[in-house]
Amino acid sequence: MRTRPLKVALLGCGVVGSEVARIMTTHADDLAQRIGAPVELTGVAVRRPSRVREGIDPGLVTTDATALVKRGDIDVVVEVIGGIEPARSLITTAFEHGASVVSANKALLAQDGAALHAVAEEHGRDLYYEAAVAGAIPLIRPLRESLAGDKVNRVLGIVNGTTNFILDKMDSTGAGYQEALDEATALGYAEADPTADVEAFDAAAKAAILAGIAFHTRVRLDDVYREGMTEVTAADFASAKEMGCTIKLLAICERAADGGSVTARVHPAMIPLSHPLASVRGAYNAVFVESDAAGQLMFYGPGAGGAPTASAVLGDLVAVCRNRLNGATGPGESAYAALPVSPMGEVVTRYHISLDVADKPGVLAQVATVFAEHGVSIDTVRQQGKDGEASLVVVTHRASDASLSGTVEALRKLDTVRGVASIMRVEGE
Amino acid sequence: MRTRPLKVALLGCGVVGSEVARIMTTHADDLAQRIGAPVELTGVAVRRPSRVREGIDPGLVTTDATALVKRGDIDVVVEVIGGIEPARSLITTAFEHGASVVSANKALLAQDGAALHAVAEEHGRDLYYEAAVAGAIPLIRPLRESLAGDKVNRVLGIVNGTTNFILDKMDSTGAGYQEALDEATALGYAEADPTADVEAFDAAAKAAILAGIAFHTRVRLDDVYREGMTEVTAADFASAKEMGCTIKLLAICERAADGGSVTARVHPAMIPLSHPLASVRGAYNAVFVESDAAGQLMFYGPGAGGAPTASAVLGDLVAVCRNRLNGATGPGESAYAALPVSPMGEVVTRYHISLDVADKPGVLAQVATVFAEHGVSIDTVRQQGKDGEASLVVVTHRASDASLSGTVEALRKLDTVRGVASIMRVEGE
Repeated sequence: MRTRPLKVALLGCGVVGSEVARIMTTHADDLAQRIGAPVELTGVAVRRPSRVREGIDPGLVTTDATALVKRGDIDVVVEVIGGIEPARSLITTAFEHGASVVSANKALLAQDGAALHAVAEEHGRDLYYEAAVAGAIPLIRPLRESLAGDKVNRVLGIVNGTTNFILDKMDSTGAGYQEALDEATALGYAEADPTADVEAFDAAAKAAILAGIAFHTRVRLDDVYREGMTEVTAADFASAKEMGCTIKLLAICERAADGGSVTARVHPAMIPLSHPLASVRGAYNAVFVESDAAGQLMFYGPGAGGAPTASAVLGDLVAVCRNRLNGATGPGESAYAALPVSPMGEVVTRYHISLDVADKPGVLAQVATVFAEHGVSIDTVRQQGKDGEASLVVVTHRASDASLSGTVEALRKLDTVRGVASIMRVEGE
Repeated sequence: MRTRPLKVALLGCGVVGSEVARIMTTHADDLAQRIGAPVELTGVAVRRPSRVREGIDPGLVTTDATALVKRGDIDVVVEVIGGIEPARSLITTAFEHGASVVSANKALLAQDGAALHAVAEEHGRDLYYEAAVAGAIPLIRPLRESLAGDKVNRVLGIVNGTTNFILDKMDSTGAGYQEALDEATALGYAEADPTADVEAFDAAAKAAILAGIAFHTRVRLDDVYREGMTEVTAADFASAKEMGCTIKLLAICERAADGGSVTARVHPAMIPLSHPLASVRGAYNAVFVESDAAGQLMFYGPGAGGAPTASAVLGDLVAVCRNRLNGATGPGESAYAALPVSPMGEVVTRYHISLDVADKPGVLAQVATVFAEHGVSIDTVRQQGKDGEASLVVVTHRASDASLSGTVEALRKLDTVRGVASIMRVEGE
């Protein structure tokens, strides 16, 4: 075993960073054995140096992250700051000064992954980011290595723990969205400003990363259709139950049936209770991967939290250090397929639509005609009358999102349709 | 991209080998892009050359596997023959002649993994074997790479599809063992001689491999406690149901609470219906991994079959080829921890014991005294009388296997105990 240590710079020392530092210290011997050389925490860049950081030598702490990554003797930079800047500049500078990088930064990878991979490649360095998607769950490595000889057709997953906690709570207690969100906030599962989670920006970034790797195609954050889950109601859950379904916020990356294009989207959807994703509880994450040869695989585990995310970061750190000792690099960006990313209108799936309609003869015929005119085939209809009003629940066969949108637009123009109470996609069948 | 192809020799062209060859042909362009160089199927060693092999150039087929691996120009040997010999000699010869090896051979890896790794290392070559455990499910790579910075404490899994199919059938239809086995055989899930599956030799080999990787310790097949599932009865399933459990054949690799030793075992066990492994149906496999930082992870998918196993083989092939182009090797054997493997007697778990006893006063007191004398604490007792006889179902708290064995031995000596109808461990709580 080499005795000269590999030098690691840690950018950020919050919930994840402090766990990374702690494990690097407590498991130093194991890490050295597994890597083939000791690793040394050489510097820790933080914003607030005055905060006490248990177990971290105060002499390592600096507020000058740029100077740290420019030292020139750093082997690996671990970036757990998050956000676009200064993370992006620091990572770029790290590559330019000879370091490899391990990052947990989904937003940055989703937005600028291609550019960062290019800089890494230019300097012959690694960029690893297992922790950016689904916390501790090994997902990036299985997709880009284990399934490297297979053809992935679909990735379907729960990749945001906060929203899964909220939806699970609504499902199990009948609570409304706000009540469930309040509980998630009180328990620390939701942040004070929950926008990134509940409006699905976080899940969309992960979908972009997963789709890119799964399909060997650049998928940018802007390519991902995004719909949050703030408008999911207790009534939606009641409807889902009647169909033998529950509601999950799903990230769905699909290859078109003809193989010529891909789509990526994030939205709430009904899935059958018999689907393994339906029983993913609390803040857990789980991702289904469907491929030609392997068939259906599922990966399940904690999708967030300091220690789980640190586990993923350290797995990458070991791999990157091994590569370093080998004088090699791991797999870089693989975007050779360069498939077009189709817009949401071309996505084909099933829909559950609740309409408030006038309770009089002929309404169903009118509604059915509109669906037919737009080429959307109806699977089931359920009509319920109440006080002169009625509700009509339509579940369709598979149709394109564009056809469905056209149908809904036309339905809204009908005099007999008082309102469209909800539209939800039905997945996982 | 390099234009000179990497040369691959395929040993064995049965269910898995023919799928490997097929995918290498149909996905040649993708594989080349992902590796960075084309791969060429240079030779296929088979026992019966007369069998028609669709899509394989007859000019590549040979019966002389030894000559093929001795050619000296082979970059990667893919071994899907199975069994100990000639696979072991061929793999050794392959390393000696400069090739890296991808194998799906669980029996060989469990028995001689350490020796084969040593030869690979001596010659600076890779030995990869993702397909040896749980078919297409990425498990070896996550354990030895993704979790390389974590401390794995437990691996708990369903790693044999044949027995899971049989047990699932018994559970869902109330069928007896023989009836369920017959159906598995008819459907092609069980082989004509099902011994390796139903007596858990197959699962024990996988447990040895998983324990070795998880604990960085050599665990040989002989170190694994093994109990088949041929004696599981419909009555056992009825008992399990009463406890809110089902029965699965589990491979369990554990680190002792003090961290100073490990155990590996394979046996049927009751697990709560609420445990995710309880809902693994048919011939599917699933493995739970518990570690310090990541917490609980689960990996699920098809555990056998030509295409799924080929997917795992090809993932390894891509990795090994990339290493080859990099002039590097991936992680080799990691056995530095060298923890002692404790015998079954030291395993601590819960037990479900059914006794046939005389239906008279004082029997329960006698039985309870025997448990107490052996230091086995009782959780619940259920007594049922029938025609002068009675049955007593005891569920214990956690106790060592040695204490439980002593208890059962003493119970058998009691006049009032007519027989021990079944003993089953209770896991996953």
